[in-house]
Amino acid sequence: MPTINPERLLGDLHKLRSFGATGPGVVRLSLSPVDVDARRWLAGRMSEAGLDARIDGVGNVVGRSRNAGPALLIGSHTDTQPTGGWLDGALGVIYGLEIARALAEHDDTRHLALDVASWIDEEGTFCGFLGSRSFVGGEHDAAVDDALRCARNRDGQLLHDALQAAGLAGEPRARLERARYVGYLEPHIEQGGRLEAGGHALGVVTTIVGMRELRVRFTGQRNHAGTTPMAIRRDAGAALVAFIARMDDAFRALADADTVWTVGRIDLEPGSLSVVPGQADLYLQFRDSNAARLRAMETALAELVREFDARGPVGVALDTLEEAMEPVTMDAALQEHVARAAQALAPGRWVRMPSGAAHDAQVIAAQLPACMLFVPSIGGVSHDFIEDTAEEHIVLGCQVAADAAASILRHAGGSR
Amino acid sequence: MPTINPERLLGDLHKLRSFGATGPGVVRLSLSPVDVDARRWLAGRMSEAGLDARIDGVGNVVGRSRNAGPALLIGSHTDTQPTGGWLDGALGVIYGLEIARALAEHDDTRHLALDVASWIDEEGTFCGFLGSRSFVGGEHDAAVDDALRCARNRDGQLLHDALQAAGLAGEPRARLERARYVGYLEPHIEQGGRLEAGGHALGVVTTIVGMRELRVRFTGQRNHAGTTPMAIRRDAGAALVAFIARMDDAFRALADADTVWTVGRIDLEPGSLSVVPGQADLYLQFRDSNAARLRAMETALAELVREFDARGPVGVALDTLEEAMEPVTMDAALQEHVARAAQALAPGRWVRMPSGAAHDAQVIAAQLPACMLFVPSIGGVSHDFIEDTAEEHIVLGCQVAADAAASILRHAGGSR
Repeated sequence: MPTINPERLLGDLHKLRSFGATGPGVVRLSLSPVDVDARRWLAGRMSEAGLDARIDGVGNVVGRSRNAGPALLIGSHTDTQPTGGWLDGALGVIYGLEIARALAEHDDTRHLALDVASWIDEEGTFCGFLGSRSFVGGEHDAAVDDALRCARNRDGQLLHDALQAAGLAGEPRARLERARYVGYLEPHIEQGGRLEAGGHALGVVTTIVGMRELRVRFTGQRNHAGTTPMAIRRDAGAALVAFIARMDDAFRALADADTVWTVGRIDLEPGSLSVVPGQADLYLQFRDSNAARLRAMETALAELVREFDARGPVGVALDTLEEAMEPVTMDAALQEHVARAAQALAPGRWVRMPSGAAHDAQVIAAQLPACMLFVPSIGGVSHDFIEDTAEEHIVLGCQVAADAAASILRHAGGSR
Repeated sequence: MPTINPERLLGDLHKLRSFGATGPGVVRLSLSPVDVDARRWLAGRMSEAGLDARIDGVGNVVGRSRNAGPALLIGSHTDTQPTGGWLDGALGVIYGLEIARALAEHDDTRHLALDVASWIDEEGTFCGFLGSRSFVGGEHDAAVDDALRCARNRDGQLLHDALQAAGLAGEPRARLERARYVGYLEPHIEQGGRLEAGGHALGVVTTIVGMRELRVRFTGQRNHAGTTPMAIRRDAGAALVAFIARMDDAFRALADADTVWTVGRIDLEPGSLSVVPGQADLYLQFRDSNAARLRAMETALAELVREFDARGPVGVALDTLEEAMEPVTMDAALQEHVARAAQALAPGRWVRMPSGAAHDAQVIAAQLPACMLFVPSIGGVSHDFIEDTAEEHIVLGCQVAADAAASILRHAGGSR
C-alpha cells in the first residue's frame, strides 16, 4: 500500500492557503489574480510530482499520469466562496497531489495511473460547476458555451475577460476520455456536523442529495396599516406566515431524518411598518437523497399553493428558481473500496452518509462511476473563515483515500 | 349660516395641486422649492381673504383673523409623502381658507374669528408633526430645537439649510396663544375605506388611535441549509414564523373590531436560499383607541418574547422603535357641533369613528380642545398618486365644517 507524507501534505495545504489568506480564512474567487497564481503554483507542484500538468481553456488544472490506464481521477476545487474556509475543496485536490506522489514513490504502486484535477468555479463566481461541466460535456456543453460568452461575476467582469487576463482564453478545454478512467474519487470536508456529533473520523458518501429551489409569491392589497380594519385586509405577509406553518406540517409528514427544507429569505413589499404588505415572497429550498420524496414534496407544495390561492383573499403563485437537481447515487463498488480502507485504518470510526451539499462529483457521476470521502468539519462549520478540520483527520483521510485509490486501481487491473 | 363657494373651493384645491403635480398625484415634500412656492401662494390667498398671513420660522403658514377672539383654529398640512395624493392634508387647509372667506361674506358671521394654519412637515420629511409641535411648544420644544439643529431629509439636506434657502431661518416661530382659542378643527380625508364601505358621506372623529412600533429580533445559528439536519437547527426564521402565529392568537384575544396590528417587514439574515437564517427581525406596529388595550397588547407581546426566549433554541429580544403614542380623545363638545352640522346637511349619512391614522390634531389636542371631520377616500386609498374623493363629498365636507365652525364660535360667544 502507498504511504502518504503528512508533512508534505500539510505543507502544500498551507501553501495553497497562502493564496488569498484572510485571517484564518481564504478569499480566492475563481479566476481572481490570486486564484490564477494558485493555479500556476498547483500545476507546478503537479509537474514536480511527475504528472503532465496544464491549465485548460476554462481554468481547470489537470495533472495527467504518464502511465497507461485504466486510471483513477481524483479531484475537487480550489476556488472559494467570497468568505471561504481554507480546506473546503482544496483538501481533495491536495489529497490527489499527495496520493500521486505517494504512489510514484513505491515500486509496487509506481505503475498505477492516477490523474488529479482542480475544477474551476465549483462555487459559482461565474457559473457553478463550470469546470466539471466543461470536462464531462454532453448535456452541459450548451450551458458552458453560454457561460463562456455571457457569464459575469459580481463585479460585472465577463468570464471571457477573466480567462483572457489569465492568458487562458486560447487554451483547449480538457475533455473526459471515457475509456481511460475506472472512476472518480472526490475527498472533501463534510460541511456539516454529523461526523463530529457521532464521533466519526470519516464518512463514505452514499448519495449526493437532490435539491429544489422555489419562490412562492403572495399577492394581496397594499393598504394603510392604521386605517384598514383586520377584517377587510388582504395582507400578503400574513398569508405567507400561515402558508409556512401548513407547509412545515406537510413536509414533516413526508420527511425522514435526512430531509431538509429551508426558508432562507422573505421579502414583504413595500417593507414599511405603516403599510399592510401588498406582496410577499418566500424563498424555499429543500433537499433529499430520495428522488420520489423530492417529487412528493413538490406535489404537496403545489397542492398547498392551489388551496391557498383558491381560498383567498390573497393570490398565491409558485415559481421555480433553479432547475431541479436530482439525487445522485455514488457507485456501490467504489464505495466498497473506500469503506474497506476506512475500516482498515479507523475501525468503527467511519460511517456511510448522504452528502447534503452539492459537489463536482454529482456532475461527473453522470459519466463515470464516482464516490466521495468526507472528513469532519469542526463545529460543522464551512463557507466561513473559521472552517477547520483536525490535523489528525486531515492526515487520516488522505491515507484512506490513498489506500482506496490503490485498491481501486489494482482491482481494475492496472497494467505493470 | 355661512355659505361656502364650491367653485372657489375646488379652484383653490386644484391650484394647490399644481404645485408638485405628478400625474394624478402630487410630490410636494416639506420645504422643497415647490413646497415653498405653494406656501407663498397660500399666504397670498389668506391675505386676499382678509387674514393676517405669514410663514413662520419653521415653515408654518398661519393666517390670523383680525377679529378679536374667542377664535377657532382650522388647520392641517399641505406637505405630501414622497408619492402623495392631491387631497390628504391639503383638503383641510383649503377648507379653512374657504370658510374664512365664507364667514367674511355674510353680515351675521363677519365678526367671527377664524384662524387658518398649514402645519409644516406632518409627513416627516425632516421631523414628523414639526409644525404643530413647534406651535404648541411645551414638551415638544426640545425635540423641535433638536430638529432645527440636526434633522435632515432623505437627501441629507439639513432642515436648517432648507429654511435658510427658503428665506425663513430668521423668522419668529408662531406660538399658541392659549387664551385666544376656543378650539381646533382639522378636516381631513379618511385615508381608509370605512366611510365608503358603510355608504357614509362624513365621519366625526371620536379618537385618534395610539400606536406602538417594535422590533422582535430572533438570534439563532447560521448554518449550511444542505448539511444541517432539521433536528439540530437553530433557525431564526422558523422561530419568527412560529412567533407570529402565537402573537396573532394573543392579539386576537385582546382585540376589538377596530384594533389593528401589522407585520410590515421581515428580514432574514443572511437572506440566502442555501443558508439557515442565523438572525431574523420582525417589525411590528399596532394601533388602538384604547390606552389600556395597547398596554395589554404590549404586556402579551413581552410575555411571549420571554416564553420563546426561555424555551429556545433561538434567543428572542424586544426593542422599541418609536416612542409610544397614546390614543387622543377628541373634545366631546366640539364633536357635538360637528355632528349636528353633519346631521343637518347629510341626515343619516355620517358616522362617529376613530381615526386609524395620525394627525396634527393629536399634537394640538394636548393644549386645545380639538376635533376632526373626515370625508371618504375612494377605494380607501391614500398616500398614493390615485388618492381621490368625490367632488360631492369635498363640497359637502366643507359646508359641514363651515356650519360647525360658525356654531362653535357662536356658542363660544364671539363678540359682535
